[in-house]
Amino acid sequence: MVTSTYQVQGMTCGHCVSAVSAEVGALEGVSDVKVDLPSGQVTVTSEAPLATDAVRAAVDEAGYELVGS
Amino acid sequence: MVTSTYQVQGMTCGHCVSAVSAEVGALEGVSDVKVDLPSGQVTVTSEAPLATDAVRAAVDEAGYELVGS
Repeated sequence: MVTSTYQVQGMTCGHCVSAVSAEVGALEGVSDVKVDLPSGQVTVTSEAPLATDAVRAAVDEAGYELVGS
Repeated sequence: MVTSTYQVQGMTCGHCVSAVSAEVGALEGVSDVKVDLPSGQVTVTSEAPLATDAVRAAVDEAGYELVGS
């Protein structure tokens, strides 16, 4: 298992957390997503390392933005 | 038709607007709900005057709070 942490911009409430969790959680190989709303940190556990572009696309699909690389 | 405006506290994003619209819109006799996110104003159109307590309960169910009477 691999755990990676991403920074997401724009989440303001529990619904935002749910939307990001659902989209990122639907990525192949992802077994867990934890979102810390105040900091915007999203911690993803997956079977194998994820392509950042795939995570970025999922966050974007949810309506938010991945910050940084 | 009767139009009433309520003040709701705590809505931060479009998901919040959807949640409040869905709950208030499900009240009997309600035909339209308009939410202005920046101001927190919720304008409800209904067949007959609504009991404020019913609106308060719907807003509460959505996870937010009606301000004032």
